[in-house]
Amino acid sequence: MPDRSRAVSASDSYDVVVLGAGPVGQTVAGRSRAHGLSVALVERELVGGECSYWGCIPSKAMLRPVIAVSDARRVDGAREAVTGPVDAGAVFRRRDRYVTGWDDSGQADGLAGMGIDVIRGHGRIEGARRVVVATADDEQRVLTARHAVVVCTGSTAALPDLPGIAEAHAWTNRAATDSSDVPRRLAIVGDGGVAVEMATAWQGLGSSVTLLSRLHALLPRMEAFVGEMVADGLKEAGVDVRSGVSVVELHRPGGTGPVTLVLDDRSEVTADEVLFAVGREPLTGDIGLDTVGLAPGSWLDVDDSCQVRGVDDGWLYAAGDVNHRALLTHQGKYQARMIGNLIGARAAGQPVDTSPWGAHVATADIDAVPQVFFCDPEAASVGLTTDQAQRAGHRVRAVDVDLERVPGALLYADGYRGRARIVVDLDHEYLLGATFVGPGMAELLHSATVAVAGRVPIDRLWHVVPCFPTISEVWLRLLEAYRG
Amino acid sequence: MPDRSRAVSASDSYDVVVLGAGPVGQTVAGRSRAHGLSVALVERELVGGECSYWGCIPSKAMLRPVIAVSDARRVDGAREAVTGPVDAGAVFRRRDRYVTGWDDSGQADGLAGMGIDVIRGHGRIEGARRVVVATADDEQRVLTARHAVVVCTGSTAALPDLPGIAEAHAWTNRAATDSSDVPRRLAIVGDGGVAVEMATAWQGLGSSVTLLSRLHALLPRMEAFVGEMVADGLKEAGVDVRSGVSVVELHRPGGTGPVTLVLDDRSEVTADEVLFAVGREPLTGDIGLDTVGLAPGSWLDVDDSCQVRGVDDGWLYAAGDVNHRALLTHQGKYQARMIGNLIGARAAGQPVDTSPWGAHVATADIDAVPQVFFCDPEAASVGLTTDQAQRAGHRVRAVDVDLERVPGALLYADGYRGRARIVVDLDHEYLLGATFVGPGMAELLHSATVAVAGRVPIDRLWHVVPCFPTISEVWLRLLEAYRG
Repeated sequence: MPDRSRAVSASDSYDVVVLGAGPVGQTVAGRSRAHGLSVALVERELVGGECSYWGCIPSKAMLRPVIAVSDARRVDGAREAVTGPVDAGAVFRRRDRYVTGWDDSGQADGLAGMGIDVIRGHGRIEGARRVVVATADDEQRVLTARHAVVVCTGSTAALPDLPGIAEAHAWTNRAATDSSDVPRRLAIVGDGGVAVEMATAWQGLGSSVTLLSRLHALLPRMEAFVGEMVADGLKEAGVDVRSGVSVVELHRPGGTGPVTLVLDDRSEVTADEVLFAVGREPLTGDIGLDTVGLAPGSWLDVDDSCQVRGVDDGWLYAAGDVNHRALLTHQGKYQARMIGNLIGARAAGQPVDTSPWGAHVATADIDAVPQVFFCDPEAASVGLTTDQAQRAGHRVRAVDVDLERVPGALLYADGYRGRARIVVDLDHEYLLGATFVGPGMAELLHSATVAVAGRVPIDRLWHVVPCFPTISEVWLRLLEAYRG
Repeated sequence: MPDRSRAVSASDSYDVVVLGAGPVGQTVAGRSRAHGLSVALVERELVGGECSYWGCIPSKAMLRPVIAVSDARRVDGAREAVTGPVDAGAVFRRRDRYVTGWDDSGQADGLAGMGIDVIRGHGRIEGARRVVVATADDEQRVLTARHAVVVCTGSTAALPDLPGIAEAHAWTNRAATDSSDVPRRLAIVGDGGVAVEMATAWQGLGSSVTLLSRLHALLPRMEAFVGEMVADGLKEAGVDVRSGVSVVELHRPGGTGPVTLVLDDRSEVTADEVLFAVGREPLTGDIGLDTVGLAPGSWLDVDDSCQVRGVDDGWLYAAGDVNHRALLTHQGKYQARMIGNLIGARAAGQPVDTSPWGAHVATADIDAVPQVFFCDPEAASVGLTTDQAQRAGHRVRAVDVDLERVPGALLYADGYRGRARIVVDLDHEYLLGATFVGPGMAELLHSATVAVAGRVPIDRLWHVVPCFPTISEVWLRLLEAYRG
């Protein structure tokens, strides 16, 4: 039996040391504690991490009022009740409440209440099973980990190395989610989830948004029709969507006033702020990776149990963005649950199951990653796209259904537009992936995630009856389209 | 091979004769046609049935604007944009559009385009495999069915035999969904889905609704907490919810002016209209059941393939409300798909599979019936309640989660209140049932339906990752609560 008394002591020796107290690190810590292990959780910034303060939480807090008003405006009889614009001030106060004013004491207290030692400072690995923390009061604490060190330091926004980028004071996801002034004109550079969500939010809050996409399609990791419909939605909301353009330099003399973006076609865009949402970099530059033979600043290469490859004795794990398997809070938390259970089982000498879909392996990272973008229309997908499935060597058939064919969709929103696709493995007759775009799709996705991760056979899906008249009846149309 | 040419002729001999052209009858007809069979579809009223014109479609058309406005009002920043009431006139026009002005020619044309003979008139069975239709122009058409007669005549609202009921001109679901005047005061008698949905709709459209429930709980077929939360929601919307009361007589002298309801506690309720939503009766009183040894006016007792018991040679089927398995459009359509495939397979001499979850059996009727009530909060469930599971002899554990614990729920609606329950079969470690109540639950339910009907093991559900921050993350809390 592990010694539970150690967990609440200030000992420098722990069963598990976790670097980074975002949702992923917290979940590793919590699961480890649930297995009776002592845990130190090191955080150099805010307990709760990027997701709680500059990611999912504030962005959704800002998006939901915009979507709720759009949803009401799409329904005859409700539209007439909506006479005003979204109240940006009220939205910012809402956002502030959900990020608890960027005060992390509540989350820290919660962890302490679970018997987890939260250590504030910058943690660096110093050889096997050893972490040195430079604490806020300039002390050094040396932590040793009997069973595991888990890196959950996450990622940060990448900024391109462009002329003028420094004096442009460009926004990243941070300013885009913690600002409380609505820029009259906002330029957004990017084509992924942050770009489309922030375009939706800020346009809804009153900015005139210009979205500059290097590619000709938005949301390039989803099926192509998703980006097309999301672009249409953004345009209808008033966003100036420009695709196939790159920023080559920026001008903001003195770092104040409007910023001018020069594009590769030599045209210019002038805005009051510019947001770059062009990708993420791992926060591994200064965590001592070199002391264990790994390259600082690299994504950490892990196996399906999130053990870092190339490190002896299996004491080093990495979960969340930092392992680059799936840069999504929910997927990191999933990895964290598996890791916590794996470390707990190993510590107790219990058997572990790292076969696919076993109790100690993050199989869904490969086969069943869900994602929702809370733009308007909402975009949601799980598993493999048609292309991904084919490239992986599966023999598949994809079938599409326009959501206008589903009574529940039309009742949800007059003039509903949306589309759904399933990708069926023809050799096994189960789903490899599903994609939905349209208003009100966010919660419908989980039905597909159960089907994909659960490998529910098509034959059985015919017995999974969707309620009439929900949008979920799209499942019937999809099955019918597959039967042909 | 069946003779396809027969299907589009006016022959009186068909492979399949279907009584009732609601969604269920249409689906039987469509599936039978897809198998190459000739089909006559007999309808005495509107092609599309109760659901299209006085049920799901108009009710949801009226409810959605009310819910969309409520949803927006629950979100800071959106609330400020909603200054007016729901526009009842616009809602009625919306409803009229979705019921196509009670004109069924579009649906009839669609069926004709599939090669189905729609025969308008009152059909009566006259001995084995024979149906006589009294047509609109007072002619008689004798139809014979080579393979099957399928009864899909549905149900109608039951009215209690109370003093004064006739002159009260009580509303049933029909007037409640086709009226275009908002009664100043509306009394609703009932405690099920129609009662709570119509209370939600009409209160939202401007009526002062009094809901009179005989029981002490609303929605008695769902877990008890659902009715409690729905009652709370109705009260907050302004509905006067009175439980544990029965109407003993009604007074509406001359059949005009206000109607007074006398309750069993001798108190009185005066309203401008009264809606009775106290149950359904099968529409089997005048379809010739006596000619084949069955009791007119009875629900039709069927096996899991929807063949009517007590009739020789297996030519008589019944699907939808009329067989009383599950009085829900979607469940009737499910039965219809199975029946259509069964009749098609038998006609072609192909093997049939009527084992549980086979291709020709309505297993989900017993184990995995989903239901959504579009009230506010929305109420959704699938499979067995805790009580039902225990009474069926399962060894179960039910776990609950308050939705306030789910970040995605709070982000969806400020001050979110709701609850979820799963009922786990302890011997098999899969779900027997799930229940959700709260705003925005309607589409989330289908994830549970996949899990219940798919018998996805709890161990695998841990790999079914819900997106952060969706409400679907309640699944994590439920699994954690089950693990304990």
